[in-house]
Amino acid sequence: MIHISTNDTIAAIATAPGMGGIAVIRVSGKDAVAIVSTIWKGKDLTSLTSHTAHLGHIVSDTGDIIDQVVVTLYRAPRSFTGEDVVEIAAHGSTWIQNEIINELVRHGCRPARGGEFSQRAFLNGKVDLAEAEGIADLIASSSRAAHRIAMSQMKGEFSSKLSTLRGQLLNFVSLLELELDFSEEEVEFADRSQLISLATEIKTIVDNLADSFSIGASIKEGIPIAIAGVTNVGKSTLLNRLLRDDKAIVSDVHGTTRDFVEDTMQINGILFRFIDTAGLRDTDDIVENIGIQRAEKKIKDASLILWVIDPTSDIAPQLERLNAADSQLSEHQQLIVIVNKADVDTLDHSLLARHDVIHLSAKTGQGITDLESKLTDIFRTQTDRHDIIVTNARHYQALLSASEALSRALDALNINLPGDLVSQDIRQAMYHLGEITGEISTDDLLGNIFANFCIGK
Amino acid sequence: MIHISTNDTIAAIATAPGMGGIAVIRVSGKDAVAIVSTIWKGKDLTSLTSHTAHLGHIVSDTGDIIDQVVVTLYRAPRSFTGEDVVEIAAHGSTWIQNEIINELVRHGCRPARGGEFSQRAFLNGKVDLAEAEGIADLIASSSRAAHRIAMSQMKGEFSSKLSTLRGQLLNFVSLLELELDFSEEEVEFADRSQLISLATEIKTIVDNLADSFSIGASIKEGIPIAIAGVTNVGKSTLLNRLLRDDKAIVSDVHGTTRDFVEDTMQINGILFRFIDTAGLRDTDDIVENIGIQRAEKKIKDASLILWVIDPTSDIAPQLERLNAADSQLSEHQQLIVIVNKADVDTLDHSLLARHDVIHLSAKTGQGITDLESKLTDIFRTQTDRHDIIVTNARHYQALLSASEALSRALDALNINLPGDLVSQDIRQAMYHLGEITGEISTDDLLGNIFANFCIGK
Repeated sequence: MIHISTNDTIAAIATAPGMGGIAVIRVSGKDAVAIVSTIWKGKDLTSLTSHTAHLGHIVSDTGDIIDQVVVTLYRAPRSFTGEDVVEIAAHGSTWIQNEIINELVRHGCRPARGGEFSQRAFLNGKVDLAEAEGIADLIASSSRAAHRIAMSQMKGEFSSKLSTLRGQLLNFVSLLELELDFSEEEVEFADRSQLISLATEIKTIVDNLADSFSIGASIKEGIPIAIAGVTNVGKSTLLNRLLRDDKAIVSDVHGTTRDFVEDTMQINGILFRFIDTAGLRDTDDIVENIGIQRAEKKIKDASLILWVIDPTSDIAPQLERLNAADSQLSEHQQLIVIVNKADVDTLDHSLLARHDVIHLSAKTGQGITDLESKLTDIFRTQTDRHDIIVTNARHYQALLSASEALSRALDALNINLPGDLVSQDIRQAMYHLGEITGEISTDDLLGNIFANFCIGK
Repeated sequence: MIHISTNDTIAAIATAPGMGGIAVIRVSGKDAVAIVSTIWKGKDLTSLTSHTAHLGHIVSDTGDIIDQVVVTLYRAPRSFTGEDVVEIAAHGSTWIQNEIINELVRHGCRPARGGEFSQRAFLNGKVDLAEAEGIADLIASSSRAAHRIAMSQMKGEFSSKLSTLRGQLLNFVSLLELELDFSEEEVEFADRSQLISLATEIKTIVDNLADSFSIGASIKEGIPIAIAGVTNVGKSTLLNRLLRDDKAIVSDVHGTTRDFVEDTMQINGILFRFIDTAGLRDTDDIVENIGIQRAEKKIKDASLILWVIDPTSDIAPQLERLNAADSQLSEHQQLIVIVNKADVDTLDHSLLARHDVIHLSAKTGQGITDLESKLTDIFRTQTDRHDIIVTNARHYQALLSASEALSRALDALNINLPGDLVSQDIRQAMYHLGEITGEISTDDLLGNIFANFCIGK
C-alpha cells in the first residue's frame, strides 16, 4: 500500500521534459515558502502576498547563482493543491532544472511522485476524483473531441450528474429505512410502484453513462474503423488516401495485405483509427488465412465498417460477402458501402438500395471529402445521444457495478422482498457511484489512480 | 535582410516542446494585454497591476473553454522584453498549447521567431548582445562548467570588462585627436611611450580573452582528450572505463581500433570528450593506416593526450613513440603518461621521470579516480588563468580583429607615424569590441544572432 502523506513538502519540474526557454518547478506543502527561501536571493518571500510574481536568484549554499528566476507565490488555500505553492520559472536548461530540484531536495523537499500535486488537490477538497482524472485526460488529449470531454469532466459536469443520482438514491433509501424503523406498525412510506419507476429511471441514466464508454474510450485512442471487402477492391489504396500516406502496400496481386495495417488520422478535430484488413476470400494460403481470421476479428471490434466494393469486377460474390458481414453487425456497429472506382462506375445501384452508400475513387481522391463528412456526422450522432461521455475504464466499471446493484434492487422490489434487502442494494449502487468521485476511496485506490498521472501535476 | 519590427505583438510557447503538466505561452508587445483579453474570461486584465497572477479561462470566439489557466502580467518596462508581457500558464497538452497560439494569432499576434523575445529585450536596452547570447548559452548548457560561464556572461561580467577596455581606448583616442586639433602648434598631449605601454596593456587583455576561447569553446562541446599509444596497450579498455560503458570494442588483437571512438562524460561538473585512437604502429593494412593518420590528427587537435603505456610489453618502442609525440605538442597541449596494468606493473619508473605519470589499471578501475582528479585539476588550472572565458565564436572573431587593429596601432606608434593614423586603428579596435556587446550592430547581424536562439526566448 502506498502511504499517502501530506506532511512533507514536494517538488517537481512541471513543464515538459527537455530544454526550453522557460521551465517551471512547482513546490507544494507547508514548508514551501520556507524551503524556497533558503535558496532564494530577492524579496523576503514570507512577507509577500499570494498571486504575485518576483524576480530574483536561486543560489547554492556556497553563494553561486544557479539562475535568475521569477518566483510566483500561491498561498493556501488559494492554490492548485490547496497548500502553499511556490512556482519557480527558471531558464529551461536541463542542468538548471535538475540543479534547482537538487537544491530543493537538499533543503528538505521530497521529489513528487507522478500525480502527487493533483492527489493533494483531491485530499484538500479542491477537486474530486473524477475532476482530477479529467485534468490528467486534458493534459493527454490530442484531439478537439478528446479535449472537449476531458474539459467537461474537469469542470465537474460528470461529478455533478453523479451527485444528483446519489442524492436521488439517498432519498430513496431514506424512505425505505424510515419504513424499517416503523416496521412493527406495518406502515409503507414508500409506494412500491413509485419506487420501481424511480429505480428504473436511475438505472437507465446509469446504463446510458456506461454505454457512452464504448464511444468515450475510442475517442482517446481513435474511433476504430475497419476497411473491409473481398481481395483487390482497393482497400489499401483507400487507407492510404485517408491517411494521406503510403502506409499500406498496394499491388494488383490478390491477397497483398495479410496482416492488418492501421493508423490514426484527425478529421474535423476527431481522431479516427483506420484499419486496413486482409481481403476476404477462400484461400489455401495459411498465412493469408490467418490474416483473414484477424480481419474478421477487427471487423467485429470496429465501430464502423467501410465495406469496399469494386464495381468493375464480379459483383455477385462481393454482395454475398457484404450481406454476410452486414447480418453479423452488433447494435453498436454501422456499415457504409464504399463503391470504389467511381470514375469508371457502371454498377446497377439498386443492388445496394438497402445500404448506406458512398461513391468515391480511392485512386484519384474523388468523393473522399464526402466520406470524411459522413464519418464526422456519424460520430456526432453517436456522441449527441449522450450529454456526458465516460472515457475512463475505472468509471465504466463502477457504473456497471452500480447498474448491477440497481438491477438486484429492482428484482427485489418486483418480488416484494423486505425493504432492508432493497436498501442494501441501493446503498451498494451509491457506493459504486461514490467511488467515481472519490467520496468513497481507499489509499490503495488513490495511489493507483494518481500513479498514472505525469510528474509535476 | 531580416527586417526587425517591434510594432507587432508576438506569441510563442516558451516551455520545452511536448506534453507536460504545465506549458507557458508568452505574449509580448504593445497589444499583449488587449489581445489576450479577447480570449480571456476572468478579471479585467487592463485594470490589474504588474507582476500579479490570475486564475481564469481561455475561451474561443464561440465561447468554448479551451483551458483553465493562470495569466501573469508584466507591464512595460518591468518585463523581460521591456514591453507589456502576458504569460499564460496552461495545462500542457499539445492540443491546448497549439490551440491557444492559434487563438492568439487569430486575434492579432504574430508567431515569434526564434530568439525574438531576447532580441526585443536587447532593442529595448534590457540586455546587451553579449548578455543575450549568455542567456541562449545558459539554456543550452548541460554541465556545471558551461553553466557557470554562461551565467557570468548573462550577468554582464564580460560586457563590463569590454566596456572598461573601450573606455580606456576612448581616452587614448581623445588624447591623440586633441593633439590633431593643435597639430600646427606641434603640441604633444600624449606621451608616446606612455601610449605604447597603454596600448600594449590593452592588447594583452584582449589577447588573453581571445586565448580563453580555446578552452571556452571546448567547455560547451567537451574538453577533447585523446587516448593514444601503441597498439594493444589497453586504450579502448581505458575509454570504456572512463565512460562507464562498453563503447569501444576491446580485444587482444593488435589494431582492433581503426576508426576513432569518442563520447563525452561529465567529471566533477566538467564535460570531457574522450577520443580513443587507433594504436600507432607501422603496418601494411590500408584501413589501419588510415586509422593511424586520423589518430595523429586527433592527437594534434586534443587539449590533453593520455598516452597509455603497457609496462608488461616491450617498453623501448613505446618510449620512442611517446617521445616523438611529446616533441610535437603545441604550447596549448598537455600530455599525461598512463602506466596501465598497475596491478602487474614492474616498469623501471625512472624511464618516465620527465613526464606527468599516473599508474592505473583500466581493467580493474584501480587509479581511475586519480586520473579523474588530475583531469579536473588541469581544467581548473587552465580556466583559472582567465577571469573571463570566451565561448562564442563571434566574440572570438571580434577579439581577434580588435587585437589586429591594436597591433597596427602599436606598429604605427613605434615608428612614430602621425596621430591620425594611430587613432584610426584604435577606433577600429573599439568598433570590434563594440560589436560584441551590440553597441555597434546592424539588422543583419542581429537577425543572424537571434535566429539561433530557441523559440519562446
